[in-house]
Amino acid sequence: MPNIGIVGAGVAGLHLGLFLRKHDIPVTIHTERVVAELADGPLPNAVVHHAPTLDRERRLDVGFWPVEEYGYSCHHYYVGGPQPMFFSGDLDRWSSAVDYRLYLPRLAEAFENRGGRVELGVLGAEDVDRLGARYDLVVVAAGRGAFASLFPRRDELSPYRAPQRRLCVGLYHGITPATPNGLAFNISPQHGELVEMPIYSRHGHVTGLLFENVPGGDLEVLSDLSYRDDPTAFHRTVLDRLARHYPRTFERVDPARFGLTDPRDLLQGTVTPAVRQDYARLSDGTFALAVGDAHAVLDPLLGQGANIASHSAWVAGEAIVEDVGFDELFCRRVAARRSDVVLGAAHWTNLMLAPPEEHLLGFIAAMAEHKAVADAFTNNVGHPDRQWRILATPDRTRAFLAHHDRLRAATAVTA
Amino acid sequence: MPNIGIVGAGVAGLHLGLFLRKHDIPVTIHTERVVAELADGPLPNAVVHHAPTLDRERRLDVGFWPVEEYGYSCHHYYVGGPQPMFFSGDLDRWSSAVDYRLYLPRLAEAFENRGGRVELGVLGAEDVDRLGARYDLVVVAAGRGAFASLFPRRDELSPYRAPQRRLCVGLYHGITPATPNGLAFNISPQHGELVEMPIYSRHGHVTGLLFENVPGGDLEVLSDLSYRDDPTAFHRTVLDRLARHYPRTFERVDPARFGLTDPRDLLQGTVTPAVRQDYARLSDGTFALAVGDAHAVLDPLLGQGANIASHSAWVAGEAIVEDVGFDELFCRRVAARRSDVVLGAAHWTNLMLAPPEEHLLGFIAAMAEHKAVADAFTNNVGHPDRQWRILATPDRTRAFLAHHDRLRAATAVTA
Repeated sequence: MPNIGIVGAGVAGLHLGLFLRKHDIPVTIHTERVVAELADGPLPNAVVHHAPTLDRERRLDVGFWPVEEYGYSCHHYYVGGPQPMFFSGDLDRWSSAVDYRLYLPRLAEAFENRGGRVELGVLGAEDVDRLGARYDLVVVAAGRGAFASLFPRRDELSPYRAPQRRLCVGLYHGITPATPNGLAFNISPQHGELVEMPIYSRHGHVTGLLFENVPGGDLEVLSDLSYRDDPTAFHRTVLDRLARHYPRTFERVDPARFGLTDPRDLLQGTVTPAVRQDYARLSDGTFALAVGDAHAVLDPLLGQGANIASHSAWVAGEAIVEDVGFDELFCRRVAARRSDVVLGAAHWTNLMLAPPEEHLLGFIAAMAEHKAVADAFTNNVGHPDRQWRILATPDRTRAFLAHHDRLRAATAVTA
Repeated sequence: MPNIGIVGAGVAGLHLGLFLRKHDIPVTIHTERVVAELADGPLPNAVVHHAPTLDRERRLDVGFWPVEEYGYSCHHYYVGGPQPMFFSGDLDRWSSAVDYRLYLPRLAEAFENRGGRVELGVLGAEDVDRLGARYDLVVVAAGRGAFASLFPRRDELSPYRAPQRRLCVGLYHGITPATPNGLAFNISPQHGELVEMPIYSRHGHVTGLLFENVPGGDLEVLSDLSYRDDPTAFHRTVLDRLARHYPRTFERVDPARFGLTDPRDLLQGTVTPAVRQDYARLSDGTFALAVGDAHAVLDPLLGQGANIASHSAWVAGEAIVEDVGFDELFCRRVAARRSDVVLGAAHWTNLMLAPPEEHLLGFIAAMAEHKAVADAFTNNVGHPDRQWRILATPDRTRAFLAHHDRLRAATAVTA
């Protein structure tokens, strides 16, 4: 029976820990602070879990927030500009968002109840190196760059050297949910995007607003404003920018009730996307496998980061259970198996952050025109490998749309 | 709908062709000669299909030779030397061997009956290049080196520059099957191996003898002897070497009946193992994907070549069905998905051809001692990725055997 050490108690670390405990494998999670303390802290992010992640949660017996109650069934798309487009796409299988300050402590509790060990302590790259002596495999599932020296950045997969958006993420009262209840993905060309999501927090069902602001654009101010210095000015500016850039969300705002659910429920910052090496050999010969943020940091625009972290944890868990060695052969197998999904998510996100390419604009126009195309795009949010196969090149997008044209023609004939 | 061109009508080409026809995808197989003519030709090989390959055949509706009638249930192992070892391992799911002169024409007929096209013509690497203009993807499933210029050898995965065995493969009358009916894998240290297999040919259920002879050893003569020049001398020499090196097979020979089933049922030659690049870009930008022999040529010792060719065809078929583009992204996905099985088979075969390493000898001793270990090895013949995970390094073999020791101890306690 191998003994596995995990660094990091985020979604990747906890999903992997729970997976291993389900197979009675000894596992210790090393984390810098008591996960339960997250509950009272500041908003760490605003994360959507797609159907494959929710499947994994059910199989790990941590499906505490069933989609029927906590989830949503569709995406509403709005693309601004001289001729705004508004359309929607349905999810065959629902998604949901639960505040990680509720989510992670509940999973950490389940992990410990099921025999998982948690060790507290501040960890740097040199500490990870020392962990090699204690475990058959060290899985690094934390970091956002802290373990950069361990897992060098892969330049060929990391086109950006700087953040492409400045973020302003908050939880709000006073926004009536869209009908049907869904995630609203809004684009304000040249200025940024707004992802509006139904999210469950300690205040119940509220609204998450993830403003993705292009540096230098009209929305960037949202990432600079201090809520604590002047809450009124903050709310006024958010409403002003909603009205100007995101009218489909603004029209559902009740100004009398509108406001952050709590001063702590706001996060402003930036992310520089990067894909790093899959694994490293520690000084004593033990291997360290990167999952989650240690492996791939994505801009949150498309809600992929947590889902690919969970996917990566699951792939690693399966590989651990079926293997007898945790060497380079093992690490390469994990890398090969997860690459489709992880790199698909990274490439797709990077494409959507860039000034829009012709074929992407054509695809969005096709979504607006044909519900089946919008549905396909919407469902592929849970399958970034499939999404990337459609959007990777103009030829691929053309072939996909031609396929849909033929399907429609065939349906018209038989109807 | 893509239009796929396949070069080669062996097991890889036909399995892929049948897979694509099952999904109504237009496909043409290019081959140098009428597959039906194989029937009257010389023995092309002696090939075992393992359970995963038989599964694929059933799913392709070409399971014409059900294992209950044509298959076998176990392996008998004999390792010569001062203290010979003899033991057996059971297959959870049976294997079978059918003469490819029956097998391939029957599958080619099914392929054409189901709307697959076959085009005859001698093909070289430059012709493959021209096929790019006719297809969305060209799959090269033939070659044994003919397409070497298209798919360069990967030296890091190809340790041998010359054949490691000289082969003598024949179909024989006059050998009573082992009990239970099974494949007999015999090792004569320093001289070679003999794989004795129940095989179905136009003469009914006969015995295939695949002599793998170490160059310079006492068995090499079998690869030089001419049957046609002197059948009596050939048979006498085969019996002499059987008696000297492979007594467990020899003791089941009836000398009065012993002999090749037909002068054509003999193949003598050599194979230089090589793993080649997964794909190539043709002059017009179309991609060519290598499967089967075009991608990986293995020594036949472990009966892996045809099975990984079929696996590779299936992976390629699945990828074609679910994709809209057949570019480098497509080829890389196929490469990543099949690498575990294909490279596992290549590495494992190369390990068994080399002078035996300490951990391999230890593993064989454990097989002789513990039926469960022999069973695991035997079943993994259909799963070369799993076999390689056990045998890739001394640490892995040790961990696997320790795991089996614990299982035995646990069973002893509860028994």
